[in-house]
Amino acid sequence: MNALSADELEARLRDIGARRYHRLHPFHKLLHGGQCTKGQVQAWALNRYYYQAMIPVKDASLIARCEDQSTRREWRSRLVDHDGEREGEGGIARWLKLTSGLGLERDYVVSLRGLLPATRFAVDAYVHFVREKSLIEAIASSLTELFSPGIISERIEGMLKSYDFVTPETLAYFSQRPPQAERDSRFALDYVKKYARTPETQHSVLRALEFKCDVLWAMLDALYHAYVAPGHIPPGAFVPRD
Amino acid sequence: MNALSADELEARLRDIGARRYHRLHPFHKLLHGGQCTKGQVQAWALNRYYYQAMIPVKDASLIARCEDQSTRREWRSRLVDHDGEREGEGGIARWLKLTSGLGLERDYVVSLRGLLPATRFAVDAYVHFVREKSLIEAIASSLTELFSPGIISERIEGMLKSYDFVTPETLAYFSQRPPQAERDSRFALDYVKKYARTPETQHSVLRALEFKCDVLWAMLDALYHAYVAPGHIPPGAFVPRD
Repeated sequence: MNALSADELEARLRDIGARRYHRLHPFHKLLHGGQCTKGQVQAWALNRYYYQAMIPVKDASLIARCEDQSTRREWRSRLVDHDGEREGEGGIARWLKLTSGLGLERDYVVSLRGLLPATRFAVDAYVHFVREKSLIEAIASSLTELFSPGIISERIEGMLKSYDFVTPETLAYFSQRPPQAERDSRFALDYVKKYARTPETQHSVLRALEFKCDVLWAMLDALYHAYVAPGHIPPGAFVPRD
Repeated sequence: MNALSADELEARLRDIGARRYHRLHPFHKLLHGGQCTKGQVQAWALNRYYYQAMIPVKDASLIARCEDQSTRREWRSRLVDHDGEREGEGGIARWLKLTSGLGLERDYVVSLRGLLPATRFAVDAYVHFVREKSLIEAIASSLTELFSPGIISERIEGMLKSYDFVTPETLAYFSQRPPQAERDSRFALDYVKKYARTPETQHSVLRALEFKCDVLWAMLDALYHAYVAPGHIPPGAFVPRD
């Protein structure tokens, strides 16, 4: 196998997104199409909270193994985005506005007591991947953000239109994300295009993005199985009342 | 909270099994009740292969952090059980007889190409748990074996009766396991009863067994979602032909 050009590599990465990003998952179609019950939207927000909460842990793990100062400095902005400058700011705090707006107790959400085990396993797999694989694979696994601005605009529009329990204020998380995701994914894409030059490295980078798509997909599979298909909530997980 | 007596702790552990062990999962009822297609049985064996294959990795991780020689020596028998004394022997080899007997190519099974991502995440969560938690939690997480002799006898009987593609030879794995599981779980139970004396340690031990039940349960949830509920096989995973 010959090495791909940087542009061919980008095209292959975008093709993975076109085929495997969770925008294609049936749960997202239900969520955006207004076909979820309030309990299902709560279950989604509750489980996705754990993903949000672990993102800065994942990003700090990446910075911790990066010997290049400018990459560390660049990646640090992600910590700021998610953790904010002070209590009540940043992406995690905005996600908790969403769960509160949906009527979930903040303490319950943060305790993770109602989390689906499969959500925890998928998110933890992502954190371990970033700690254990090569730095370029860790960076490549963030590239699902290339595809997130599209899904976010669908989500805001669909959810505001469809659910009377959703307000622009509870969706504040999403209105902030697209410019951050665009900046971050441009950096990560440039990095990968610049440093993934051999066929082996390019292969590992493509596999890293597939892995990350699998993580997001598995999270929605677990939600669908537990909360859309009837009767499959695993022992101990959140049970909706609506 | 006061500490439980050793016998109270055992009763609490057994109660977790009675409520959360995967014997109660709908997929197991289908499998043992003869209601699975051959493709579904293949999917089960293929995915469960990864669990089998990682068990000695998990056990070696436990031995690697254990400073007590007699515990290391005792735990070593698990490596022998799964890896055997030579090529073609041991539990993993017997599991591959099962997958071959079901008509799956050995190379395909071992490649893990068709594995559900959720299986990988759940199994890897178990390996990471054993590496990262305290030794007594790692030991306690093995205690699902207390409950396995029952499920294994149900499985052998139900599968032989129900599926013409299953023979006693393909089920050789299961005929070997119960005495091993009994010996191993007795050791682990005695260890936990002896050393988990404070309320905090007892709590962590009970949580460790719940965690392990969650791992096994999540593996069957993923199988059920992908292969019983129609149309949910995730991108890239095994697609049955029967």
